[in-house]
Amino acid sequence: MKKIIKEKINKYNKEFINLRRYFHQYPEIGYKEHKTSKKIAELLYKWGLEVKKGVADTGVVGLLKGKKSGKTIAVRADIDALPIEEKTNLEFASKNKGVMHACGHDGHITIGLWTAKVLSELKDKIEGNIKFIFQPAEEGPGGAERMIKEGVLEKPKVDAIIGLHIWPEIKSGYVGISKGPIMAAADRFDIKVIGSGGHGAVPHMSVDPIVVGSKIVSALQTLVSRETDPLDCLVISNCVFKSGDVFNVIPNEANLSGTVRTFNPEIRKSIPKRIGEIVEGITRAMRCKYEYKYNFYYPPTINNKKFTTFFEEVAKDTIGHDKVFELERPSMGGEDFSYYLKKIPGTFFFLGTKNEEKGINKPIHHPEYTFDEDILQKGTELFVNTVIKYLNN
Amino acid sequence: MKKIIKEKINKYNKEFINLRRYFHQYPEIGYKEHKTSKKIAELLYKWGLEVKKGVADTGVVGLLKGKKSGKTIAVRADIDALPIEEKTNLEFASKNKGVMHACGHDGHITIGLWTAKVLSELKDKIEGNIKFIFQPAEEGPGGAERMIKEGVLEKPKVDAIIGLHIWPEIKSGYVGISKGPIMAAADRFDIKVIGSGGHGAVPHMSVDPIVVGSKIVSALQTLVSRETDPLDCLVISNCVFKSGDVFNVIPNEANLSGTVRTFNPEIRKSIPKRIGEIVEGITRAMRCKYEYKYNFYYPPTINNKKFTTFFEEVAKDTIGHDKVFELERPSMGGEDFSYYLKKIPGTFFFLGTKNEEKGINKPIHHPEYTFDEDILQKGTELFVNTVIKYLNN
Amino acid sequence: MKKIIKEKINKYNKEFINLRRYFHQYPEIGYKEHKTSKKIAELLYKWGLEVKKGVADTGVVGLLKGKKSGKTIAVRADIDALPIEEKTNLEFASKNKGVMHACGHDGHITIGLWTAKVLSELKDKIEGNIKFIFQPAEEGPGGAERMIKEGVLEKPKVDAIIGLHIWPEIKSGYVGISKGPIMAAADRFDIKVIGSGGHGAVPHMSVDPIVVGSKIVSALQTLVSRETDPLDCLVISNCVFKSGDVFNVIPNEANLSGTVRTFNPEIRKSIPKRIGEIVEGITRAMRCKYEYKYNFYYPPTINNKKFTTFFEEVAKDTIGHDKVFELERPSMGGEDFSYYLKKIPGTFFFLGTKNEEKGINKPIHHPEYTFDEDILQKGTELFVNTVIKYLNN
Amino acid sequence: MKKIIKEKINKYNKEFINLRRYFHQYPEIGYKEHKTSKKIAELLYKWGLEVKKGVADTGVVGLLKGKKSGKTIAVRADIDALPIEEKTNLEFASKNKGVMHACGHDGHITIGLWTAKVLSELKDKIEGNIKFIFQPAEEGPGGAERMIKEGVLEKPKVDAIIGLHIWPEIKSGYVGISKGPIMAAADRFDIKVIGSGGHGAVPHMSVDPIVVGSKIVSALQTLVSRETDPLDCLVISNCVFKSGDVFNVIPNEANLSGTVRTFNPEIRKSIPKRIGEIVEGITRAMRCKYEYKYNFYYPPTINNKKFTTFFEEVAKDTIGHDKVFELERPSMGGEDFSYYLKKIPGTFFFLGTKNEEKGINKPIHHPEYTFDEDILQKGTELFVNTVIKYLNN
Repeated sequence: MKKIIKEKINKYNKEFINLRRYFHQYPEIGYKEHKTSKKIAELLYKWGLEVKKGVADTGVVGLLKGKKSGKTIAVRADIDALPIEEKTNLEFASKNKGVMHACGHDGHITIGLWTAKVLSELKDKIEGNIKFIFQPAEEGPGGAERMIKEGVLEKPKVDAIIGLHIWPEIKSGYVGISKGPIMAAADRFDIKVIGSGGHGAVPHMSVDPIVVGSKIVSALQTLVSRETDPLDCLVISNCVFKSGDVFNVIPNEANLSGTVRTFNPEIRKSIPKRIGEIVEGITRAMRCKYEYKYNFYYPPTINNKKFTTFFEEVAKDTIGHDKVFELERPSMGGEDFSYYLKKIPGTFFFLGTKNEEKGINKPIHHPEYTFDEDILQKGTELFVNTVIKYLNN
Repeated sequence: MKKIIKEKINKYNKEFINLRRYFHQYPEIGYKEHKTSKKIAELLYKWGLEVKKGVADTGVVGLLKGKKSGKTIAVRADIDALPIEEKTNLEFASKNKGVMHACGHDGHITIGLWTAKVLSELKDKIEGNIKFIFQPAEEGPGGAERMIKEGVLEKPKVDAIIGLHIWPEIKSGYVGISKGPIMAAADRFDIKVIGSGGHGAVPHMSVDPIVVGSKIVSALQTLVSRETDPLDCLVISNCVFKSGDVFNVIPNEANLSGTVRTFNPEIRKSIPKRIGEIVEGITRAMRCKYEYKYNFYYPPTINNKKFTTFFEEVAKDTIGHDKVFELERPSMGGEDFSYYLKKIPGTFFFLGTKNEEKGINKPIHHPEYTFDEDILQKGTELFVNTVIKYLNN
Repeated sequence: MKKIIKEKINKYNKEFINLRRYFHQYPEIGYKEHKTSKKIAELLYKWGLEVKKGVADTGVVGLLKGKKSGKTIAVRADIDALPIEEKTNLEFASKNKGVMHACGHDGHITIGLWTAKVLSELKDKIEGNIKFIFQPAEEGPGGAERMIKEGVLEKPKVDAIIGLHIWPEIKSGYVGISKGPIMAAADRFDIKVIGSGGHGAVPHMSVDPIVVGSKIVSALQTLVSRETDPLDCLVISNCVFKSGDVFNVIPNEANLSGTVRTFNPEIRKSIPKRIGEIVEGITRAMRCKYEYKYNFYYPPTINNKKFTTFFEEVAKDTIGHDKVFELERPSMGGEDFSYYLKKIPGTFFFLGTKNEEKGINKPIHHPEYTFDEDILQKGTELFVNTVIKYLNN
Repeated sequence: MKKIIKEKINKYNKEFINLRRYFHQYPEIGYKEHKTSKKIAELLYKWGLEVKKGVADTGVVGLLKGKKSGKTIAVRADIDALPIEEKTNLEFASKNKGVMHACGHDGHITIGLWTAKVLSELKDKIEGNIKFIFQPAEEGPGGAERMIKEGVLEKPKVDAIIGLHIWPEIKSGYVGISKGPIMAAADRFDIKVIGSGGHGAVPHMSVDPIVVGSKIVSALQTLVSRETDPLDCLVISNCVFKSGDVFNVIPNEANLSGTVRTFNPEIRKSIPKRIGEIVEGITRAMRCKYEYKYNFYYPPTINNKKFTTFFEEVAKDTIGHDKVFELERPSMGGEDFSYYLKKIPGTFFFLGTKNEEKGINKPIHHPEYTFDEDILQKGTELFVNTVIKYLNN
């Protein structure tokens, strides 16, 4: 079976590399993936899957039923591109000005489709169902949560889910897994310190919001340095401080914004309150008013231990024991695959694409980012084997 | 003599009020006072003064020689307007869109010209010379320093100088004097904290300039609170803090700007070094680089005690003992009359214009600012009497 | 009359210099001035004054009635010494170990007594009363307030008061006056930041009071640098920060204490509330509790303008026009003569004692402090003339 | 064999529980363990070991040679007590006033000796040597480093080492292991900020060290919050801030001390320099001088992965698979077993002693600390089996 699968996948190598290049040429940003999702839907339909379009606007869901009934596993691929001007000089570089598949989602789509194609040809040998989730807007504001709300994990009920990110920091063909957190929660805060402007020559007639904003920035550091278990992980980065336009006019307001990252749901829950208390306490101390907003963006992506252990075995069996390793450290980046994992077991893994010999070493979101296309087949093998092992055992 | 002067001034009241309204209608900003200075020059010439145009671009100097030779006293009037859209609804409101005589310089010009007119008719009774300095760009970048460089205090050498600001915080017709500092030095600093930007999720890969800028803002407070004699006066207002654009991207730089005010020349001299030390020490402590500029703008306006005491007597004699008072406190505002006073004795005083009955109570630089025109004649009497007393005694 | 007075004073020169040396040898600290006040009382009684002992424990009040009835003026001398070990090598150095007249109060007593002696011999020529207030504990905790509470300004009601401090920063024989504030208010604050101690290795199990105390120290700076009119004067010095004993144990508390100085009663009134708000806001922001005490010590010593102008004329007449000058700056030190001036008009002035030729140049409270004894007669002349001019005019 | 061992150990149960109680009654602090080490040496000698006394003053080393030559493994037990007054009410409570075995080292000694006793009876079955290291002064200043310097790991050369801490946070009889860091590095810093004292009323005459110390405390937070990988672990606790004695006297100095904890040797190495830069930069910014000392205390205790995996198997075999678990988190405490692990492979593990039913739940260093004596036999079994498996395989 393993051999059959490998040969079947291999047969379509050229076709899917070309498909990847097609998607790469026509990148579309979140919720604008019209051309992309049309193409995906056509292919899935052609291969005999039940296809549902327009889930979360531009999402596509394909359902492949095996011969016998059984469990349902989902394969997820995110399909959106980034508002970045490509500078790769690739033959198949972006034709959409200012938009680029700089995060490898063209690879994710391709692996997802290739998996669908191969499994569609193997459906007689499968007990259960595979649901292919082609999800929009992973880069923001996040299509996963919407697709779930629109029922993507129901009818049939999905029992497990698998997803990947092709990863430029790992050597091509290697797989990094985590049996717990793999990507961080990524939230946002916005603070407006409301003082009272006036002439810089007479500060006592004003309430200076810059001095107060500075004290808030300083106090925020202590949430990490003093209030968090040193063995836990928390990042609070105040990345914006905007106040004042004229060198001798005290401004009315100071605007601060920042991001908060953690893997620990309890810490995540406590931070909005603590930032709020700091803002309230310090503004009150300094005679200011304030506005404060805290937005939970993506939760941490926490893999199911049991499912990941299962996946680890499949992966080692598929690409070799020495090619699968536990990540020393999770990524501080965010990922809305997290929403699926809050509902059902599953795993999200990193598939390495770094290939110094081929000169492939740029980070994601870089205008010269590209990846080693050899990994498309690897990713497909991993997905196909995992699906079959999961359903047929 | 005093009576003759008063009658002579009074005679031209209507003419000069109209002249003020003319200037008010055609305000021009610093170094653009072409129409204004043309008009001034024509009048001075018409009244028989020696006229020199184009001093510091748009400045005009008129020289009136008395019958006998003697000392030389200068009368200074600043002539520029502000880039403010007038909202007064006056019949003679500005016809130059976006420009307004919102600082009363139209009044200053008028008093200067009225003084010239009256003195030109009394020159047979005068021993010595009067130099009329119509100066551009007082609101910035400062015409006084340039006019001095171009020789306005020479040929003949000026022995003393007098100037005024009509002042909305003092009751109409009253005169506030100071026998020492009357307006502050007003300088500027600009600090660029150079960190190293990056993703907000991985702060250890960056050097966060916002945290460092915040520490600089905090440290600057101590120059006032700890390092300055509490009986001295120093203001350091950091009025601009600009850093970052995106909530989850640590920026490369933080840009800070502010103003420094003091009356004490020694403190003024020490501050640039101390701010520089703070910026250097803190950026070094926090692994940043920096750029730092300090610009001395106007020096403090410090009146000559002896001349001001002389003026005080003339003023009391002119408008009444009860109308002349020593200011409790100098103004923290800046004024480039200071440059003349660094060279020669003289006095700069405030002539009150507030008149609640007439609804005149707006501060300078306000779009609805206006002043009580009754004070034009008062100002002229003060100038004429001071000049004559100074020269003839 | 002036001449008679001068001669009369001069006659007792040697006697009162000896008397001063007597007091210098037997210094006593606040509320322990038993021997001192006994001596004072005996002399006043001997000279025919009505004497009241035990006012505010160790205070003595002498009443001298003129021939005719009239106004009442008070002459105040403070009588306490300091807990300082004298190191002057004077023949008449302190015989009380660890106690020293290091603030010149021995001079004040002597001038007060000499004045009493001379006026007692002139009482036939005086219309009204002179009340001599020999006050304990000026160095703290303050005898003035208590003497007032015990009625020293009543029966007969005192109309004006005069006092002096012999002053080592002014040349011997010169008089520095102020027609407004001459000495500052001097108050005290104590802050206890209550965190929660624990092992330094696990800061999240504690609430670190040192970090919070540091933020309070920093925020206090802004009361001076941002909230006070730069033309006003405020000092907030946090002089004590005590927290922790062991390098790896986070302490429970941080204890801060400091002093507040100002001349402006409104600022003085506002500071306790503002410090309280800062402490409350910041401790709340940082999860701490706190205790906070604010003690008003001496109010600012603010001279009555009219009376001081009167005194200025007397002083110029007494010691020469060139020897009397307005102080450029008041002292930031405190003085409980302030309490009298809050009740009645009067003046407190500085009588210079610096004499470099005699090697007299040490500041007060210095173990080698001494003063030029020539000024004892000057002080007496100033007091006697002021009293007589005040009562007889 | 396993069974033989178990029975042999069990046979001496009562004897070694009594021995533990003996040591508990006579606790001795670091480098004063004279009675303790005498007792240890006597027993080892009695059981036929080669004994070396006086290593690092009060350390004892016993060497047991197996029948055949082979590898050498060390068993380490720390023997010092703490300067704590015992409050347990145990029959066998400390008889040495103010000294207590409050960290369970009496248990460590007992397990070490019991292991020696049992192995001495099995030496015919052993290939290789066992070195018993009874080490003084673990609580500080640290006997491990000295014993290594005095050659404890040589002659014969030690190939591996094993040690344990009985641990009140783990349930009695369970074993917590770590295949990497298990205890933190624990270092110390001391900072003296040297300002210039003076009267609180005139801060400009002083350089206020409290304000500067506050800024250093604040800046230290950023080493954790901004400069350390959020996935790494660093603690900087400034636990002492001492400055000033009198509320109105600005002090000369502020003294700060604190502890630094991390598992990462690179971070550990970088911190002294970074703290130094912060202290230098901020003091320079604020016109202060400083003194700064950084002392490396114990390094992090980092277990050898391979040896620990070996131990894990032995432990599971000895006490049951369900009783051995990987610690979720290492301890932030310090331990000088770290010095051995820097030289040779080995493992340090936690043996649980918590037993709520027996009311045993106090933390180490608590005056009522005690432990469940049942674990003495468990510890001995773990040591004996590990030694035999290590040497004989």
